[in-house]
Amino acid sequence: MNAQQAYDQLVAHGRTSTDLASALNLLSWDQQVLLPPAAHAGRAEQIGALTAILHARATDPHIGQWLDACENSDLPRDGLSIEATNIREWRRDYDLAVKIPQDLAVALAQAASAGQRAWELAREENNFSAFAPHLQKMLDLSLEKAAAVGYAEEPYDALLDAFEPGETVSTIAPILDELRTATTAIINAVADAPAPQPLPAGPYPTTAQTRLLHQITVLLGLPESASRLDVSAHPFSTCIGRGDTRITVRFDETDFTKAFFGAAHETGHSLYSLGHCNNGVYGTPMGEPVSFAVHESQSRLWENQVARSQPFWEYALPLAATHFPQLADLEAEDIFRAVGAITPGLIRVDADETTYNQHIVLRFELELALVRGELEVDDLPQAWNEKSRNILGIIPPNDTAGVLQDVHWAAGDFGYFPTYSLGNVYAACLFEAAGKAIPNLSRHMAAGDFSSLRQWLTTTIYEKGRLLRPRDLITAATGSAPTAGPLIRHLQSRASCIYGI
Amino acid sequence: MNAQQAYDQLVAHGRTSTDLASALNLLSWDQQVLLPPAAHAGRAEQIGALTAILHARATDPHIGQWLDACENSDLPRDGLSIEATNIREWRRDYDLAVKIPQDLAVALAQAASAGQRAWELAREENNFSAFAPHLQKMLDLSLEKAAAVGYAEEPYDALLDAFEPGETVSTIAPILDELRTATTAIINAVADAPAPQPLPAGPYPTTAQTRLLHQITVLLGLPESASRLDVSAHPFSTCIGRGDTRITVRFDETDFTKAFFGAAHETGHSLYSLGHCNNGVYGTPMGEPVSFAVHESQSRLWENQVARSQPFWEYALPLAATHFPQLADLEAEDIFRAVGAITPGLIRVDADETTYNQHIVLRFELELALVRGELEVDDLPQAWNEKSRNILGIIPPNDTAGVLQDVHWAAGDFGYFPTYSLGNVYAACLFEAAGKAIPNLSRHMAAGDFSSLRQWLTTTIYEKGRLLRPRDLITAATGSAPTAGPLIRHLQSRASCIYGI
Repeated sequence: MNAQQAYDQLVAHGRTSTDLASALNLLSWDQQVLLPPAAHAGRAEQIGALTAILHARATDPHIGQWLDACENSDLPRDGLSIEATNIREWRRDYDLAVKIPQDLAVALAQAASAGQRAWELAREENNFSAFAPHLQKMLDLSLEKAAAVGYAEEPYDALLDAFEPGETVSTIAPILDELRTATTAIINAVADAPAPQPLPAGPYPTTAQTRLLHQITVLLGLPESASRLDVSAHPFSTCIGRGDTRITVRFDETDFTKAFFGAAHETGHSLYSLGHCNNGVYGTPMGEPVSFAVHESQSRLWENQVARSQPFWEYALPLAATHFPQLADLEAEDIFRAVGAITPGLIRVDADETTYNQHIVLRFELELALVRGELEVDDLPQAWNEKSRNILGIIPPNDTAGVLQDVHWAAGDFGYFPTYSLGNVYAACLFEAAGKAIPNLSRHMAAGDFSSLRQWLTTTIYEKGRLLRPRDLITAATGSAPTAGPLIRHLQSRASCIYGI
Repeated sequence: MNAQQAYDQLVAHGRTSTDLASALNLLSWDQQVLLPPAAHAGRAEQIGALTAILHARATDPHIGQWLDACENSDLPRDGLSIEATNIREWRRDYDLAVKIPQDLAVALAQAASAGQRAWELAREENNFSAFAPHLQKMLDLSLEKAAAVGYAEEPYDALLDAFEPGETVSTIAPILDELRTATTAIINAVADAPAPQPLPAGPYPTTAQTRLLHQITVLLGLPESASRLDVSAHPFSTCIGRGDTRITVRFDETDFTKAFFGAAHETGHSLYSLGHCNNGVYGTPMGEPVSFAVHESQSRLWENQVARSQPFWEYALPLAATHFPQLADLEAEDIFRAVGAITPGLIRVDADETTYNQHIVLRFELELALVRGELEVDDLPQAWNEKSRNILGIIPPNDTAGVLQDVHWAAGDFGYFPTYSLGNVYAACLFEAAGKAIPNLSRHMAAGDFSSLRQWLTTTIYEKGRLLRPRDLITAATGSAPTAGPLIRHLQSRASCIYGI
């Protein structure tokens, strides 16, 4: 078999795995959106059966042989070609997959499944100690995984790298530190300023919200022919497969902005997904998202930089007012101010744009301490409450509103949280650069035209797939290495406009 | 490996395949109910990838080795035990699967996919000759398949046996002949009688229909916790997996009975499916439906014998009238008469209970002639029109309303059609026997209590899985070998009540 034949085999193998992963995506989407209650046990087994097949395919020794043939040829000579990228990233995926022994992979999957169920119950019953053994188990297995995978400086790096290739504690800690200091200053500065006028009270009927969301997602660029909008308890988006990206929201009839910004956020994820799914490199690394932070940067950019901006509301307010007459007397600026209010609270997923990063700093510091062995699982609730007081200025009344509020650790996702803030950082870097690259972007937005922004993101981010490491991708797109600066400037500017500080 | 270990391996292998088949079921359900238009090409590839895995699993040589170990042991000694049944049926499935060469299996799947697409276009454009080469291809491949699988008397038997184990042309032709003669007599007898009064005109709003259907499906015994009701262009039901059976309907606001009897029909399929899915033998042949005709018997029994009966409407009419005030002045007998009208037409899926079997006779005779080589594909439209005139008394105005109306042949499903009428025959046999076994069944039904009927079907049909061949299953359930007699009596009796003949 020559190198080209080996490459073709890798493409075919990858496409089939991607097709099978689509089935897995659908099983999971359906479970969160439609599944009859009696079917959950069966669904877990179906997901398990398909996961096992995908794991076996990812560690198929043929991949190693095909890669050897490719690597010992001229195919990867041009490091920035599609072929070189695919070969490099297949190698990364394969080496990572085979480094994790089958027993460990199964143990991780089973513990994650049991852990999430235990977490649900513990959260309902505000009972951390019932959850603690599961958390300990996930932590132990994650450390085992880190050891199997290997790392440059410390085990946390191995876990982080799985979500954010190339990043380490030493690269992200300074960014999060800078963000924490600047955010604290903003929050303190507005603490005594009068809060912006809240939006009119509801009701905002679900049917009218649904119609508005269909209009807005299409306006932002999500094609109706390749997407769905549904309802689920926990909003999310998923790319099932080619031409099939789905977003979910949760409606609150007293506050239309929850579903609205949720939909804008998930639309950002979906635009990025469709940017890969619909091109010819689908099923290979060049047709895949590069990292969790870059994915999050796309959702945050459309949610925060775009949909919370005043120019956006100059176009969107008349549209929203056709559905909700109580908005008819408002100005775009009123909405901009109301949805930019800074109100520190206990719950991450309800946090405003500014406070959000404080929640991430808190979690990053705690999970790093756990992984380093500097904090015991049993001491976690107390450590959480102390950090909550220090960073957010609030002590949770119970663990359900504190250490038990997120599922991530129960699922073994240590190293995931920082990608949220890194996503916010990247979103700000990209939007600042887009503003320089696209003349009159604000005027386009105020006219309901988002095509120039989408086009810029398509060429700088969507079409790049896994060509570059996330940090290098942002550098190439913006012309300079990513820093917290643009995000801090963005948050300061909004606080200044809204609170007059 | 001893026999018990081999048996356990077969169970585990079968369960995993069933779990993977669940993913395939979901891909297909989703395609028909929810899929965004841009995703159809991708979905076909996803289905192809999973189908290939299932085919490889079905022909895994380990199965042959495990079966050898089981068959050479005491495990199958009691021929009516769960173990003996599973071993016998695994052997049937495995031998059938390995008899079909991989190349032929792939060619059949590809031709079926292309054939269905070509049929859609040909039907839209009333262009049989564009479809003819695809039909020829499906016919040739089906003959190849019949030769590979083998048969006792003629190739059609091999194709029929895949849908209806144990049946042959010589066993079903006499039943269909008897049915044709009796049906023709009924249709002729009522031809000049005054038609029953039709139901009041609409509108029957979709929202009200939906609420009624939820009530009725629950009333008939479909648990809300294990089912869904959705909308699709072509109504169907599918058992995705354990505790997850889904039905779809199509609403017509001028006529609520279309969705109503559709839902009753699909509920019958679903009750049978849930009867397998939720028991301990799930994933083995004892937890699977035995044949297409038996499956159809369950849908037809609930649709026709139950939901079109006068006792049923004594309970259901007041319920329906709460949703549709225009029904308030009717009597149960009025509905019974209206929904029992005999009105021969061109389209099978719109046919009344009596005429329906004439449509099947027409298709059976034509597909048998094709398979026997007595009829050329090019001559099929003319042959269809002639038979339509002979059997239904109507000549289709075009092929779209004639030979192109059904997808089955495009998908290569030669031998499928007779199972519809056999299902009607079995339904009548079973309901007649149930009426003898359950004292006061009519009174139960008129009181909205269907539990005695469900319980009888559970023990006689649902729980039997693939224990017996279909014909033997009906014999065991009813106490005598199935004949067309009960169905003919049922149709005659209804015609007599409604038309006074």
